[in-house]
Amino acid sequence: MNKPLILITNDDGFAAAGIQALARAVASLGDIYVVAPEGPRSGSAAAITSTIPVSYKELSGPAVAKGYPEDIHLFACTGTPVDCVKLAWDNILPKRPDLILSGINHGDNASISAHYSGTMGAVFEGCMKGIPSIGFSLWLQRGQRYEDYPVSHATLDEIGVFCNRVLQQSLPQDVCLNVNMPTLDKVRGWRVCRQARGRWEAEWASATNPHGLHSFWLTGDFHDLEPEAPDTDFAALRAGYCSVVPVTIDLTAHAVLEQISKLTD
Amino acid sequence: MNKPLILITNDDGFAAAGIQALARAVASLGDIYVVAPEGPRSGSAAAITSTIPVSYKELSGPAVAKGYPEDIHLFACTGTPVDCVKLAWDNILPKRPDLILSGINHGDNASISAHYSGTMGAVFEGCMKGIPSIGFSLWLQRGQRYEDYPVSHATLDEIGVFCNRVLQQSLPQDVCLNVNMPTLDKVRGWRVCRQARGRWEAEWASATNPHGLHSFWLTGDFHDLEPEAPDTDFAALRAGYCSVVPVTIDLTAHAVLEQISKLTD
Repeated sequence: MNKPLILITNDDGFAAAGIQALARAVASLGDIYVVAPEGPRSGSAAAITSTIPVSYKELSGPAVAKGYPEDIHLFACTGTPVDCVKLAWDNILPKRPDLILSGINHGDNASISAHYSGTMGAVFEGCMKGIPSIGFSLWLQRGQRYEDYPVSHATLDEIGVFCNRVLQQSLPQDVCLNVNMPTLDKVRGWRVCRQARGRWEAEWASATNPHGLHSFWLTGDFHDLEPEAPDTDFAALRAGYCSVVPVTIDLTAHAVLEQISKLTD
Repeated sequence: MNKPLILITNDDGFAAAGIQALARAVASLGDIYVVAPEGPRSGSAAAITSTIPVSYKELSGPAVAKGYPEDIHLFACTGTPVDCVKLAWDNILPKRPDLILSGINHGDNASISAHYSGTMGAVFEGCMKGIPSIGFSLWLQRGQRYEDYPVSHATLDEIGVFCNRVLQQSLPQDVCLNVNMPTLDKVRGWRVCRQARGRWEAEWASATNPHGLHSFWLTGDFHDLEPEAPDTDFAALRAGYCSVVPVTIDLTAHAVLEQISKLTD
């Protein structure tokens, strides 16, 4: 029997609880290769490492965190999530993967946050390589700590079912999925939706520094610009659903090609 | 008279020839603020700095590189191109900018390379903030060195005319522009087009290391997957035109929403 090969990465690092949960959720579906950053890479977007070399090492035996399923192939990489997918593709995997998963991210990647997301950067990369690819992220509301809201067993079971459907049915060309999940014991279901329009504001907090250097921590308040719209990812999350946004790697704004042509007349 | 405020950034750093040329190209159009990384940040995509604080400093007098126009406001930032836009927005600019420009990048950002591009990351950020934003990149073919192919005076003049049109006419909501330019003394014109389908392959070169560590440099060969298509960015570049791709920050693959819904039934 030819078992499917599933590559898993993330942007919180191989030791994060979320990637271990994701690996457990799909362990029964195929051979699992985890190739993930050695440490946190939040906000990496689709960044690649171009100014220094990157390396990776296989972790085995006692070095494998207890949260991973048995029989996993685990590699830690010095680069970004996209580097992880590229390194796995060229140098680690024994064959072409059947599915690429990323997450489960600590914090949501709904609305425009998908642009900054290292979780989704890896998913774009998988999609660019022609492989069905899905990112999973957990919507933590203000004051909620990831440690207090692990994804429930019921939701992990649903992730497994969903990933198996994607393995069976594949995804359209150049389309990947951005899945965000509420912190509920039992989600109400899965809802396919579009990316909400949003904006980050007040994004910097002054950082104190013992040497007097004036510097800033990135922070910010997110504003949903269409809070009444029923068909967005945030609307789905607020209603207790997992949001599933099909995402295209074709960035072209096809609808305005003609309008923009007037700029070059 | 209320002069337009133009914010310029890039991913090659404030000292790069390309950003200085871009500043000269638009110097007559408004007040120019350059807020750019202190050094190279190629491949940053829309990455943000989340694990360490960032800082910036104003450069003035002899510290300003000779290639910049007079009366420029120049700031160097420790972060990514997106950080530069965010820092400028919250902490540096005296008012809301009228136009955000990024580049001129050393190397093209056509086809899927736009996903990895720090140049375009800053442009997405400007667009997310509701400002007309344009990225400019120079298409260098194999063996061409940036130093040997500066953008010609004629093309810089055309950049000024184009940016002035965008200042006057603005851009559609949630749409920014990805402009790539051939290395010609005189381009044949500007062509509005779509992102070519493409793929990077053979992306790693072994890096030798005096300590015996096995590591890899990111490299690769780009393949245009639709070389015969007449309406792509690479088709425009090969024909001697500047390619202008309108890019949307809405990543949703609207055309397949219904098809994907079947996965969640």
